[in-house]
Amino acid sequence: MKQSQLFTKTLRSIDKEEKSISTQFLLKSSFIYKELAGAYVYLPLGLRVLNKINDIIREEMNAIGGQELFLTSLQNPELWKKTDRWGDESVDNWFRTKLKNNTELGLSFTHEEPLTNLMKNYISSYKDLPKFAYQIQTKFRNELRAKGGIMRCREFLMKDMYSFCRDQKEHEIFYEKSKQAYINVFERCGLGDITYLTFASGGVFSKYSHEFQTLAKNGEDTIYVDKKRKLAVNKEVYNDEVLNNLNLDKKDLIEERAVEVGNIFTLGYKFSTALDLQFTNENGVKQNVFMGSYGIGPGRVMGTIAEIYNDKNGLMWPKNVSPFNVHLLDFRTNKDDKFYNILQKNNIEVLYDDRNENPGVKLKDADLIGIYYRFILSDKLGDKIELKKRTDKTNQILSQKESLDLLKKEFFK
Amino acid sequence: MKQSQLFTKTLRSIDKEEKSISTQFLLKSSFIYKELAGAYVYLPLGLRVLNKINDIIREEMNAIGGQELFLTSLQNPELWKKTDRWGDESVDNWFRTKLKNNTELGLSFTHEEPLTNLMKNYISSYKDLPKFAYQIQTKFRNELRAKGGIMRCREFLMKDMYSFCRDQKEHEIFYEKSKQAYINVFERCGLGDITYLTFASGGVFSKYSHEFQTLAKNGEDTIYVDKKRKLAVNKEVYNDEVLNNLNLDKKDLIEERAVEVGNIFTLGYKFSTALDLQFTNENGVKQNVFMGSYGIGPGRVMGTIAEIYNDKNGLMWPKNVSPFNVHLLDFRTNKDDKFYNILQKNNIEVLYDDRNENPGVKLKDADLIGIYYRFILSDKLGDKIELKKRTDKTNQILSQKESLDLLKKEFFK
Repeated sequence: MKQSQLFTKTLRSIDKEEKSISTQFLLKSSFIYKELAGAYVYLPLGLRVLNKINDIIREEMNAIGGQELFLTSLQNPELWKKTDRWGDESVDNWFRTKLKNNTELGLSFTHEEPLTNLMKNYISSYKDLPKFAYQIQTKFRNELRAKGGIMRCREFLMKDMYSFCRDQKEHEIFYEKSKQAYINVFERCGLGDITYLTFASGGVFSKYSHEFQTLAKNGEDTIYVDKKRKLAVNKEVYNDEVLNNLNLDKKDLIEERAVEVGNIFTLGYKFSTALDLQFTNENGVKQNVFMGSYGIGPGRVMGTIAEIYNDKNGLMWPKNVSPFNVHLLDFRTNKDDKFYNILQKNNIEVLYDDRNENPGVKLKDADLIGIYYRFILSDKLGDKIELKKRTDKTNQILSQKESLDLLKKEFFK
Repeated sequence: MKQSQLFTKTLRSIDKEEKSISTQFLLKSSFIYKELAGAYVYLPLGLRVLNKINDIIREEMNAIGGQELFLTSLQNPELWKKTDRWGDESVDNWFRTKLKNNTELGLSFTHEEPLTNLMKNYISSYKDLPKFAYQIQTKFRNELRAKGGIMRCREFLMKDMYSFCRDQKEHEIFYEKSKQAYINVFERCGLGDITYLTFASGGVFSKYSHEFQTLAKNGEDTIYVDKKRKLAVNKEVYNDEVLNNLNLDKKDLIEERAVEVGNIFTLGYKFSTALDLQFTNENGVKQNVFMGSYGIGPGRVMGTIAEIYNDKNGLMWPKNVSPFNVHLLDFRTNKDDKFYNILQKNNIEVLYDDRNENPGVKLKDADLIGIYYRFILSDKLGDKIELKKRTDKTNQILSQKESLDLLKKEFFK
């Protein structure tokens, strides 16, 4: 894409209320736009990052047998009354609305109820199990206060997967697979090294749930990390009994601030009992389905990446989630599209800064936007390219062919 | 994908209220699921069709310079009061909701207001124009009655593009390009032959708007079609003056029922005036931006395709929007994945019916689901494949290699 055509620009002034540096960078570089407190527009550059995160999540969920669907936001209260999650006393963050005939509806903040109910069409025998369904869809949560940019919103995308198994044993096999799938997602998004599988409070059917917590000094959560074993314990369950259970030693644990980028949860029979999702087992006996839920917020992952990967000049996107592979800055007096076209023909994603701006402006914008590779064309370089990664301190100068080979190696190995 | 793993099945009984055959087929084959009147879940097969339609739309919008973004559903009334579109007397289909502090919000039924307002960040000079932005996002419309399956919903996906130009002349160049892009979309979706560019009522800034109307006997609209000139006139503007204007002759026009699958509209200065979106022209004078809007409902397109392409046994998806390229039915006593794996390795999208069901069940399901190609493996065929298109009456029998070559030719020409 040619930057002269891009409808957004980098901005000089932004909303002073946004305190976090990463949110300021996301706003200044026009990845996002604040529509109202807790609701953000994804502008073209931001949507490219979000879609890359979504695609990574899809690949990993599909790899463990997940099947994608797309549920509705509008919800009929009847279903939620059966699980006692309609009233304000049990759920305090519904957005409610009404049909013209005054029928009350809700905007879904999660989707256990409608999916469990839908599954009654498809699950009747043990032969129908296990099954795994997920979606990437908008959630609405009527938070009292919205803060932290795209980290905690009133309207946001969520990948939520739900598992339906014959029993706890079958569930646990999938639950373990899902842990690895989640680890893969964060690894591919550039957060692998600093994201910890974290024990958190469970429910009736499981002593613990598991969170994926990414270390970040502005994180909302406090966790205790065993870096050697690559495990952590959320403050909410940090006590001697739990440490004993998990065979963790206080001496090995460091207190850290972190962002919850994902969680997985054993639901057990809670929803299948309330909504009557049953199957007939091998012996002809009816049983409730054993369920689990698995969430990741792609927008929060994007916000976390921005929070981790930045310097004083702007964002620094990891390779797999960078909005483009290359930011090609053209400083030449007589610009032409030749090298841009070569890159495009080779399926390299390029943002081509063909604007009539001086090099200083282009360099500053490139640092703010933070695309993985920066390539420079200039009169003094002739046919050569000056290139560096956003995270590098030093440049190298290569021929067009050499630089293309390097990109091919990096992006299509 | 293996059909034994797919979490949905074809259903024998469905909601009796759905009167249209195509909606019945979509429900029975588990492409969609009715959550509540006017809100449908897209199940895995349906989501595949919807995504193919979305991708075709994206390609055509990108080709004419469209840039994708993702706006919010939650809307602040203040913006809509400026254009007089908040009150019930001007807009009768808002879904309204409230924050915890009782602030009223709306759920967007369209997005002119927020996008026009957002563009004030990026448009200040004639050099910033023209610009074209679009999204594929959920719309909420509080219809008094919801009917017609996914054809008219309270919650539905919409591709809405908005153009921002210096003046009417620049606008008209893009407007003409958008017509062709829309024609391309419907052509690629299999609706080209029966979709007519249709003159409909305009506004202050243009005598007409344009609809894209697909002939369908259950369509909501009445249009008058000139089949030779491939044009139509909506009943709402069908009068002697208009026919004269358009140089159409009553004798050449046939009355038809049709579904509006898209529309394009000259907005002029309406929103830029109300929301103060201005630019400085070449002479240093401030001017309002000249706007247009361009809508397609991907769900409605899917519903229209289903309405057009079916027979008494089920759906018949056109090639480009079929949920899979091939439905591979395995009738063999000893099933193996070999040919399925060969197809997958060649990037052919296959639904592999590996279930332990008899051939009659598999054939019936295949007809109902309506995938473009049906391939059969059976003991009596040996290594050969029996294949036919869903729309064909007769089979052919080919070797594995021949059938693979045929697919490659068809899907990767």
